[in-house]
Amino acid sequence: MAESFGFRLLSQAGQARLGEIATPRGLVRTPAFMPVGTAATVKALYPEQVRATGADIVLANTYHLMLRPGAERIARLGGLHRFMRWDGPILTDSGGFQVMSLAKIRKITDEGAEFQSHLDGGRHMLSPERAIEIQCLLGADIQMQLDECLELPAEDAEVERAMELSLRWAERSKRAFESMAKPGQALFAIVQGGTEAKLRRRSAEALVAMDFSGYAIGGLAVGEGHEAMLRALEATVPELPAEKPRYLMGVGTPHDMIEAVALGIDMFDCVLPTRNGRHGLAYTWGGPVNLRNAVHADDPSPLDPQSSCPAARDLSRAYLHHLVRSGEYLGAMALSWANTAFYQELMGAMREAIREGRFADWAEETKANLAGSRAE
Amino acid sequence: MAESFGFRLLSQAGQARLGEIATPRGLVRTPAFMPVGTAATVKALYPEQVRATGADIVLANTYHLMLRPGAERIARLGGLHRFMRWDGPILTDSGGFQVMSLAKIRKITDEGAEFQSHLDGGRHMLSPERAIEIQCLLGADIQMQLDECLELPAEDAEVERAMELSLRWAERSKRAFESMAKPGQALFAIVQGGTEAKLRRRSAEALVAMDFSGYAIGGLAVGEGHEAMLRALEATVPELPAEKPRYLMGVGTPHDMIEAVALGIDMFDCVLPTRNGRHGLAYTWGGPVNLRNAVHADDPSPLDPQSSCPAARDLSRAYLHHLVRSGEYLGAMALSWANTAFYQELMGAMREAIREGRFADWAEETKANLAGSRAE
Repeated sequence: MAESFGFRLLSQAGQARLGEIATPRGLVRTPAFMPVGTAATVKALYPEQVRATGADIVLANTYHLMLRPGAERIARLGGLHRFMRWDGPILTDSGGFQVMSLAKIRKITDEGAEFQSHLDGGRHMLSPERAIEIQCLLGADIQMQLDECLELPAEDAEVERAMELSLRWAERSKRAFESMAKPGQALFAIVQGGTEAKLRRRSAEALVAMDFSGYAIGGLAVGEGHEAMLRALEATVPELPAEKPRYLMGVGTPHDMIEAVALGIDMFDCVLPTRNGRHGLAYTWGGPVNLRNAVHADDPSPLDPQSSCPAARDLSRAYLHHLVRSGEYLGAMALSWANTAFYQELMGAMREAIREGRFADWAEETKANLAGSRAE
Repeated sequence: MAESFGFRLLSQAGQARLGEIATPRGLVRTPAFMPVGTAATVKALYPEQVRATGADIVLANTYHLMLRPGAERIARLGGLHRFMRWDGPILTDSGGFQVMSLAKIRKITDEGAEFQSHLDGGRHMLSPERAIEIQCLLGADIQMQLDECLELPAEDAEVERAMELSLRWAERSKRAFESMAKPGQALFAIVQGGTEAKLRRRSAEALVAMDFSGYAIGGLAVGEGHEAMLRALEATVPELPAEKPRYLMGVGTPHDMIEAVALGIDMFDCVLPTRNGRHGLAYTWGGPVNLRNAVHADDPSPLDPQSSCPAARDLSRAYLHHLVRSGEYLGAMALSWANTAFYQELMGAMREAIREGRFADWAEETKANLAGSRAE
């Protein structure tokens, strides 16, 4: 295993990139999808299952973990890897997004984000320095700068103000990281700027000048729509250095990810596979399947005979339908597992298509297949 | 594997019995605990996990399955074993207990139990014949007669009336079973009679005269208290033939089961391991542990280092505490798994103690150990 963090570009097909992130805890093959382990667990999956789906890295949420069980507690217990029994790399976000989406009351100042916990109303201050301190206490292999996220649409002036604030926080995050992090850990910056190409470019340019280990694109998939998201990516990606990984935060559907990879994105995270799994929606190579629908009640065929996942390959649609309708744990467990496996298979197929120089054709064909049963 | 149903008594220590039930789908080592798979799933466990805990047989509920997804549907899909992917023996209850405990409105007549579904208010009639028909549609290896269950305490006259009705239903259940069942399937009778020794004996005597493949003791663990339960067992068990398995329905705690085995009981089922697991309570060899308690928040030690179950052996109490407090699926999954494994280990230890002729000593010592942390 590598002693330091690094990124290697192995192959390119159009803008789509095949690569490898080296960390002291193992390799991350890119394009990579990071299952979301919000509260130190990928919901409804055993860590061994997550690993067996082919996931190289998982994400955990600073906001959730700082509130419960607490970053200092996890550090005393030997760090997040030991706590959640995941020995591969972990990326933690900085908490900025959840402060926007979950906290009860929040006040953003230059100092940081002051907010009330959605759990118990307790008051907390998340500054760029504290966000890094928490991520170091957790022992995250890839850490994120604190940024201010806005819900879109927002006024241009407001988007610009938040972007500029995030740049100042990026600098402070980097200084804090350099004083606290262990060798081999990495810090990523987050490009902001809403759907304004000009702001995105300015944010990217300033962050690249600061020299981070990787660059995330944040503040998308928050209500701006698919086309606006793609335009923001088109404006941003060309500004980012080819030799650093690029991470599109909080995205997305299989369709979104295929198009983002085509534009040069390397990393993703999203709650969709597990959240939809808990709600009875399954991803398959033939398109999404809503197991709640009565059409499955008498169907003895498996969810997806092409899947590598036992839950998708061995359980009948009739049984899954019954489990989902009955609100049984096993329904949520099996579909979260099947979806997490599907997302990894999709990334694996993308990597293979890039390696073989046929990504564009593969993407067209796969998008058509995945749209197959959408009408269902 | 056996072609027909049979029971073999292998050894005895006092009244405690070591035995083996042969079925076409495999052996059941007794004393046996049957994990409860109410709606065709042992809650929060994969079937492979249930099997790996050492369970030889699972129980499923006629009442739940007749309402959803429906017995005829399960038959069309190839039967309950295929539906829930459990290839070992399955015992189904007759629905009588759930009609009492769950159905909205019920009217008991000589014909059967008329009730309204707790799910959608639909009206259903469960007669002795229909209860057997449903169990045959499910393909249950061990089937139960329809009986009338009462909540205790109840008036003596009412207990007697229900017991007599259950005897008439036993006869009709047997006739129906003989006309519908497949070779190798077995029908058990259910002794009723509340906590009245006289009624229990009369019920047992009449049922033994009808010659069933096994005898259950029903209508206990419904509010009568531990001592009253033991007295009812003491009155009933001596009336039952030594060469047939004896099943104490709906029981119980580890303590209950040890004492019931000492009185000659061979089989148990109970929702406690999974229900308590979902609520944060774990069974261990050192006694029950409530993972919600703050005392576990910083405890890096495993739930039970003696356990054969990875969830009990590998996950720290601090992590389980966090999962339970956070309402995470994995908390319910891990504790349901650990508890199901503990119950199987307990039965295995009882079988070994009987085989080695030291059941009484083992029972005293184990009851003391299990009471260890009860104050917690």
